[in-house]
Amino acid sequence: MVLEPLRTRFGVNRVVVSSYQAASGAGRALMDELEDQTQAIAAGKEPSVAATSHQLAYNVIPGGWKPEADGYNEEEMKLVHETRKILHDAELPIAATCVRVPVPIGHSESVLIETSEKASADDARLVLGSAPGVIVEDDPHARIYPTPHHVAGKDEVYVGRIRDDLSSSHGLMLWLVSDNLRKGAALNAVQIAERALEMGVL
Amino acid sequence: MVLEPLRTRFGVNRVVVSSYQAASGAGRALMDELEDQTQAIAAGKEPSVAATSHQLAYNVIPGGWKPEADGYNEEEMKLVHETRKILHDAELPIAATCVRVPVPIGHSESVLIETSEKASADDARLVLGSAPGVIVEDDPHARIYPTPHHVAGKDEVYVGRIRDDLSSSHGLMLWLVSDNLRKGAALNAVQIAERALEMGVL
Repeated sequence: MVLEPLRTRFGVNRVVVSSYQAASGAGRALMDELEDQTQAIAAGKEPSVAATSHQLAYNVIPGGWKPEADGYNEEEMKLVHETRKILHDAELPIAATCVRVPVPIGHSESVLIETSEKASADDARLVLGSAPGVIVEDDPHARIYPTPHHVAGKDEVYVGRIRDDLSSSHGLMLWLVSDNLRKGAALNAVQIAERALEMGVL
Repeated sequence: MVLEPLRTRFGVNRVVVSSYQAASGAGRALMDELEDQTQAIAAGKEPSVAATSHQLAYNVIPGGWKPEADGYNEEEMKLVHETRKILHDAELPIAATCVRVPVPIGHSESVLIETSEKASADDARLVLGSAPGVIVEDDPHARIYPTPHHVAGKDEVYVGRIRDDLSSSHGLMLWLVSDNLRKGAALNAVQIAERALEMGVL
């Protein structure tokens, strides 16, 4: 929802993502475990670990998904393949690092986007400001930027920290947050509809 | 400690960092607030927010540092300037997104490094494996990667998730974790020694 309007306006040559993913992305078991571990920490006890091999409360875990080739995991490759599919660009250069954070709901991403046509942060802010389903919350001086705690329960994708990339001539950096349970459900609906079309049901 | 051995062996052309920074980096007040908020959540109460304008427990915050020019903040620009200084490369293209996570101790970073000479993940693993003060923990199939919970209290910088960047021909991706309190203290000692040298005291 964020890349497509930028691609339409400026072209996208490369995407690099580092994620901050909520416990609920892994299902009920990890959400419950995060809550249990939080209770244990508050009570001064040692948290027990079952759902993943690492404690999640008071920690961040750069893995837990099924390992795939070349050191990447299933979640990182899914992000690569789904982004290419959505942008109809099977060769788009894209790489991801997926990290689990001790947040119940709300996936966040720190994203570097290299565009074909030079786009300033102001250009990107204008394009995203009128993109459907996207809300720009971007005023660091007023400490306004999206966080998962505030985006949980919302349907839109929230974008902030929109900046010119200091390390390239055609790069943009930004910060995305969405409610993974709502987005997940929406994505499922789209996939079911696509499948129904393929099968000639719709 | 991680970039310098890679620079010596392969040359470094560009660095992009997304951080996952502990509460203790902001001092005692935010560490205490994280603990208080965790107690409140465990007790089913609304956490109170004072040290920053956003709840940190069960959340991630892409800011909280003093805003600087072009949407960046003090922490992000400090990372740019200190990296350039340490690598003796005043023009090194580098950009950062700094994010606070609900972790008491231990800063983590997801890092993209573009090298001058092509370096594979295996090459990088070999170089970092023999770098002083660096410990490579990198076996995703065995769920081995560094996390702040395990690195807290250690003096070394831990590196894992070393991969070829899928979005460029000369890129490496990796995950770093260090104890920010110990590294901070060491950095202070170095700076004091440098200052003493400048002043002719040493």
